Amino acid sequence: MKLDVAFSPRELTASEVADRTVIVIDVLRATTTICAALDRGARAVVPAVDTEDATRLEEVLGPADVVLAGERNSVRIPGFKLGNSPSEMTSDVVQGKTLVMTTTNGTQALLGTAGARDVFVAAAVNLSVAGAAARAALEEHGDLLILCAGRDHGFGFDDAFIAGCLAERALGGRRRRKGLNDAALVAVDLVIRYRDRIERALALSRAGRELTARGFRNDVTAAAQVDAHPVLPVFRDKRITLAQHGARS
Amino acid sequence: MKLDVAFSPRELTASEVADRTVIVIDVLRATTTICAALDRGARAVVPAVDTEDATRLEEVLGPADVVLAGERNSVRIPGFKLGNSPSEMTSDVVQGKTLVMTTTNGTQALLGTAGARDVFVAAAVNLSVAGAAARAALEEHGDLLILCAGRDHGFGFDDAFIAGCLAERALGGRRRRKGLNDAALVAVDLVIRYRDRIERALALSRAGRELTARGFRNDVTAAAQVDAHPVLPVFRDKRITLAQHGARS
Repeated sequence: MKLDVAFSPRELTASEVADRTVIVIDVLRATTTICAALDRGARAVVPAVDTEDATRLEEVLGPADVVLAGERNSVRIPGFKLGNSPSEMTSDVVQGKTLVMTTTNGTQALLGTAGARDVFVAAAVNLSVAGAAARAALEEHGDLLILCAGRDHGFGFDDAFIAGCLAERALGGRRRRKGLNDAALVAVDLVIRYRDRIERALALSRAGRELTARGFRNDVTAAAQVDAHPVLPVFRDKRITLAQHGARS
Repeated sequence: MKLDVAFSPRELTASEVADRTVIVIDVLRATTTICAALDRGARAVVPAVDTEDATRLEEVLGPADVVLAGERNSVRIPGFKLGNSPSEMTSDVVQGKTLVMTTTNGTQALLGTAGARDVFVAAAVNLSVAGAAARAALEEHGDLLILCAGRDHGFGFDDAFIAGCLAERALGGRRRRKGLNDAALVAVDLVIRYRDRIERALALSRAGRELTARGFRNDVTAAAQVDAHPVLPVFRDKRITLAQHGARS
């Protein structure tokens, strides 16, 4: 059994992603927002590298069906309809639409998973569903990689904490250390320390503090709502969609 | 006050190192071994990028005064007199010599500090002395960066734990969170969790387990001996020497 956590995409080479099940976390806010959007009826979310890539994808996909979403340094990109706030993902805006999305850390992490077998998207808002997918991957393949988007290529407390929550569920509550890499050990320790104080842990992180300072404290609260959006987003063929019931994913 | 921990050199850009006091940790084993060598009378330790760089430096410095030291994947480099084991650093071998040293992670981290104001070397074996230097830097400049060598560009539990010990000493035992980056918060949490079980924490890390599996368990024990080598190695002008008493460093 091999359960790896990577605290940032920089820790990984392409060969360390190849043919693995990867679960990507950017809890503040990209993966929380993706879960909210798909739960509210968006058809798909397409991650874009940057603003130029996003507008190009909008042209290719046809502007009628596309909504542009994204931020840089927490703030909505000028000209984009949506920022990166889960509260913006209301049914009347996203229902039936394809969101083209670019964010500082989260979409970069997703785009770094090329070559993986399966890529799922996780946050606190879909913890139980994502945890079940994590556990299934461990049971079926004996292997799982939880990839934190992190912060500016470094460590992010918020993502590390949710990685621990996910690792714990993947292990089915067993307190085992064998097969965990060093980052997974620490992530699980974080959960033991903060346990159910998820909002506290997220608010404590630099991302949480910066969001609060910039007027997005509600997003931190929303991101801490466990299972508020019980969906399993799957990233495949350059787009994120809901996992199909009954389909092998 | 700004106290940052970086879990691996990859998290840093040159601008994040510039003009700062940096303390480098590779407790298993490079920085432990460097402390041992200088404590046993080595004149200097010169980090080398790789085997070729090391043999070139040996030629430049003059083979009579130089001892080559280094490992790849824990094992001594063929043709080198020393590996990377603190127990090899006996007075009869290192006294008055310049060690040219290349290791998998530690020397790379040291070489990544170009542009820093001051660079110190830390491990458990010089924790009190390094902790005093860390505290002095925080008091004088209000800023400190603790840089973990990590493991293959990723997170290493062993270095993160010692980073926490050092951060705690830098803070003078105060339980404050303001000014700490996310990695520093987690490092301090690790110390609260493992406290005085330093050998246990080191043995638990992947580096510790691999050393044990390769017959270097004694090195893990040696690396856990707090203040066994109470020296302050300073990296300046491409070489590591002891800080001069009375000199400003």
